[in-house]
Amino acid sequence: MIEITSTSNNIVKETAKLHIKKYRNECIIIEGKKALDNAIEANLTIEYIFSANRDLLKNYEKYQTYLANEKVMEKISTTESPANILAVAKKPEYSIEIFKKFKRIVLLDNIKDAGNLGTIIRSASAFNIDGIMLYGECTDEFSPKTIRSAAGNIFRIPIIHCTKEQLKEFKKTHKMIATVVNSQNDIQNFNSKEPFIIMFGSEADGLCEELLTFCNISYTIPMKKGVESLNLAVSAGIILYEIFKNQPD
Amino acid sequence: MIEITSTSNNIVKETAKLHIKKYRNECIIIEGKKALDNAIEANLTIEYIFSANRDLLKNYEKYQTYLANEKVMEKISTTESPANILAVAKKPEYSIEIFKKFKRIVLLDNIKDAGNLGTIIRSASAFNIDGIMLYGECTDEFSPKTIRSAAGNIFRIPIIHCTKEQLKEFKKTHKMIATVVNSQNDIQNFNSKEPFIIMFGSEADGLCEELLTFCNISYTIPMKKGVESLNLAVSAGIILYEIFKNQPD
Repeated sequence: MIEITSTSNNIVKETAKLHIKKYRNECIIIEGKKALDNAIEANLTIEYIFSANRDLLKNYEKYQTYLANEKVMEKISTTESPANILAVAKKPEYSIEIFKKFKRIVLLDNIKDAGNLGTIIRSASAFNIDGIMLYGECTDEFSPKTIRSAAGNIFRIPIIHCTKEQLKEFKKTHKMIATVVNSQNDIQNFNSKEPFIIMFGSEADGLCEELLTFCNISYTIPMKKGVESLNLAVSAGIILYEIFKNQPD
Repeated sequence: MIEITSTSNNIVKETAKLHIKKYRNECIIIEGKKALDNAIEANLTIEYIFSANRDLLKNYEKYQTYLANEKVMEKISTTESPANILAVAKKPEYSIEIFKKFKRIVLLDNIKDAGNLGTIIRSASAFNIDGIMLYGECTDEFSPKTIRSAAGNIFRIPIIHCTKEQLKEFKKTHKMIATVVNSQNDIQNFNSKEPFIIMFGSEADGLCEELLTFCNISYTIPMKKGVESLNLAVSAGIILYEIFKNQPD
């Protein structure tokens, strides 16, 4: 356990840099004990851990630990009230190959809101989805806000970025399912024996034309007439819940 | 149509004050054409309307309109990129009496997050809930962020604050339903012929003990083992969806 009290310490500065996406190519920030324990459970490589609480740090003696003061914690934290513990870990990386074995995949197209992305990851984990594909220009899945919104589930589910070319390969083995606001197919009738990729579009524009025409079938959530739509993370939650109910295993 | 170009104009200053909750006792800010049109449709009293777009303002000639410049719009707007139109309206007020006729009521206990509150209001509107009760120390239902998250539904559904004493009265006519993470009752079996009040607790603490013991029955959402919970707005969305499916009218 090394003590660090200066905010101009190099490791402090390097850590604070990770607030910005362009510096998160290799490493990410993990804030709070719960998220850190999840990361360890998911076998992420923990580079080092900061805390102002000596006793808390003692639980992590097998890692490089830094005993910081409140000023340092404030500097490296991405929230106004710093978490009691903060770690830097290697970004998890998954190969597209493992996704080929997955039966239930969620694809998110151009999701811009970090809170929405994290919330959908949380729901996907709760409803037994095997993996998440990000398509187009999505917000960073390892931004501090996304990690927070995923509430400990970000490291429990593989996430990759995918291209149209890769999706074409998947179409040979997976059913491609669009979620839209105006389909004739009620989501409660969803029951796929085949592996599938279920797609959700951005809050502003829905699924892009390219993906819509690529899909085999579309589903919608029934709702009261006159209401235009639900929040994206709520829609995704309802749809993943219906799928889970119909095929929990 | 009166032109206003100074940010120190009194009406501009009075409008900007409404960003802060303590000044929203009588009036609220409504940002964007969609929200304004919803407010008009819901018969809110529109005090005045600001826009930098003369043509847009012409659609609202029966109201007091102010043609502003960009600086004024920035000053009165609550978002970084100001909406093209901004109105001030009298806060809608509902009496507890009309709630007595409602069959499907949602109660929110100590909801702190403005985004969650708005999102739940949006879902409640989509799934045919008659009214929303706020209990305890909830975030302001007419904060700009809540209005934005409700996406045009904030004025479509009556919202009131209620006390334990009032709830006791409702218990004579309405079934009291708790939503929790660990009930034996699966929400998909929900089907109430009686009028009901369904309750959701805060993100951090769930339903307070006082309300839990007050309820007749509790329900839960089935999910994968090991996942602790869903986002509050997602849980509420799923539960209101199930209720709507079982009794759409």
